[in-house]
Amino acid sequence: MEEKNFVVGVDVGGQTSKLGVVDARGEVLAQSVIRTDTYGADAEAFISALADAIKKVVGEAGKTGQIRGVGVGAPNGNYYTGSIAFAPNLEWAAKGSVDFAKILSKKLGGVPVSLTNDANAAAVGEMTYGAARGMKNFIMITLGTGVGSGIVINGQVVYGHDGFAGELGHTCVVRHNGRTCGCGKQGCLEAYCSAIGVAKTAREWLESGDEPSLLRDCDNITSKDVYDAAKEGDALAIRVFNYTGTLLGRQFADFVAFSAPEAIVLFGGLARSREFLYEPIMNAMNENLLAIWKGKVKILFSQLKESDAAILGASALAWEL
Amino acid sequence: MEEKNFVVGVDVGGQTSKLGVVDARGEVLAQSVIRTDTYGADAEAFISALADAIKKVVGEAGKTGQIRGVGVGAPNGNYYTGSIAFAPNLEWAAKGSVDFAKILSKKLGGVPVSLTNDANAAAVGEMTYGAARGMKNFIMITLGTGVGSGIVINGQVVYGHDGFAGELGHTCVVRHNGRTCGCGKQGCLEAYCSAIGVAKTAREWLESGDEPSLLRDCDNITSKDVYDAAKEGDALAIRVFNYTGTLLGRQFADFVAFSAPEAIVLFGGLARSREFLYEPIMNAMNENLLAIWKGKVKILFSQLKESDAAILGASALAWEL
Repeated sequence: MEEKNFVVGVDVGGQTSKLGVVDARGEVLAQSVIRTDTYGADAEAFISALADAIKKVVGEAGKTGQIRGVGVGAPNGNYYTGSIAFAPNLEWAAKGSVDFAKILSKKLGGVPVSLTNDANAAAVGEMTYGAARGMKNFIMITLGTGVGSGIVINGQVVYGHDGFAGELGHTCVVRHNGRTCGCGKQGCLEAYCSAIGVAKTAREWLESGDEPSLLRDCDNITSKDVYDAAKEGDALAIRVFNYTGTLLGRQFADFVAFSAPEAIVLFGGLARSREFLYEPIMNAMNENLLAIWKGKVKILFSQLKESDAAILGASALAWEL
Repeated sequence: MEEKNFVVGVDVGGQTSKLGVVDARGEVLAQSVIRTDTYGADAEAFISALADAIKKVVGEAGKTGQIRGVGVGAPNGNYYTGSIAFAPNLEWAAKGSVDFAKILSKKLGGVPVSLTNDANAAAVGEMTYGAARGMKNFIMITLGTGVGSGIVINGQVVYGHDGFAGELGHTCVVRHNGRTCGCGKQGCLEAYCSAIGVAKTAREWLESGDEPSLLRDCDNITSKDVYDAAKEGDALAIRVFNYTGTLLGRQFADFVAFSAPEAIVLFGGLARSREFLYEPIMNAMNENLLAIWKGKVKILFSQLKESDAAILGASALAWEL
């Protein structure tokens, strides 16, 4: 019997899903992308297309029959049940629960499938191949369209009683008159410190004053526009990042009080604004930490190439199968 | 060789320390109390007195030579290092670090000693003998003079990178103009929801208005006075508990987003005010939880007799030695 020394990682996103064949050293041998959003409410159709794409990319890598397992990172993915439920950005899983891992495994002829949410997958990837290599206690924060998190304690991802642990984007950072978050609650970290939150802060500040800013020339401001303006020295854009970093740092201090991590690792599109975020995060975090932790908790930025990271993280799950 | 089937639990408090001999079923066979606060800055003298008291109580229980280990719960106790450091309420450990476990073990002729903070010890006790029996994921909150916490994930107490994890009393519950906490930070949960915090809320509200209240007859209001007044139907006292419970519930929602526990277990003097705290906690928690958790997280109250609980919790640590 041939040894099974390769895994497949799948990153399910709202528009597209990436998949790749990965070896034990974290090399992506072959990869591919399929649409996620062209199947309407038909989960089965999407999973069939995914299974076909997996078989194809495994064939391209020349590893047919050598796949130990498939790891999947998906919004609202539940590690315990292998299902995706009530994921607002996935039409075929928005209104109920899809038995994703089980169906995919069946379509792949019984290859084991492990599933978790995308932020947990990123944490596993960072621990296996990235900035958190060798760390037993860290918190991964993904700063993308939303704010996600993957918590590692004692070398293991925290799933909690029900598999949904690690929703730090929905802890409260602004108690009084906080913004309404996509989740329906008020004042969530995600409502301020996601890419969308940053753009919203900029728009609010532009509207509430008449300070000159490069951003006044933008039609539909994105966090990328705010970054570009900050790069040009735009004072308002720089203040937006200061504010965002300050809110993150405050909240990180509370996270440290929970699990006393060695580091908090930042990942995702917004984490590329490191030069504007690092200092305000550090200052606010240290200001709000108990004396025992002041100056001791690292803020790191992901070392994984973003295009590979999602596949690598998900694939790392499959090694444990 | 005789089997060692008994353990000793020690609960180090600011004024007194309790110790007891415990069997495998959680029966306290013999117990004793010594002063903690009569040794000035001389840690060695206290530890000597404690070692003598342990030998004596073990003798009284008739278990000399049959002790597997000693578990100690102490403020700022560090599980990894076995030391107590910068504990404001322990004069002999207030200004530096005391190698407590090592010194005590030596004085006991080499019996192994395990140490952690008092809230973690309470969590272990609750999991071994109390309301959290059989639970793998829960959070213990101790509502006493301060607010402490012990977090259990996957059946294990969370110690974090440095041994100090679980300082949830020092997460921020009031961002704007928050009270200054004993730790020096502002707006900490402990500044509002400890016994001292509750008394302070009552005093502030009495001073800022002229609403009639039974509490106006008290000289130096304690949380017990507020409880007694609430029992009598005093409207202001009941509102103090509503406020306290609301702040606790809000914060609990954020804790749930972190580790998705099955339950939050309350312990300590203030937890006796269950009848006034339960509803406001539940309401505020559920209001601030993501939809996936609404109505699903239990709030439990410790089932351990308070006089035994601290000894039992600490002793449970020693079974793992």
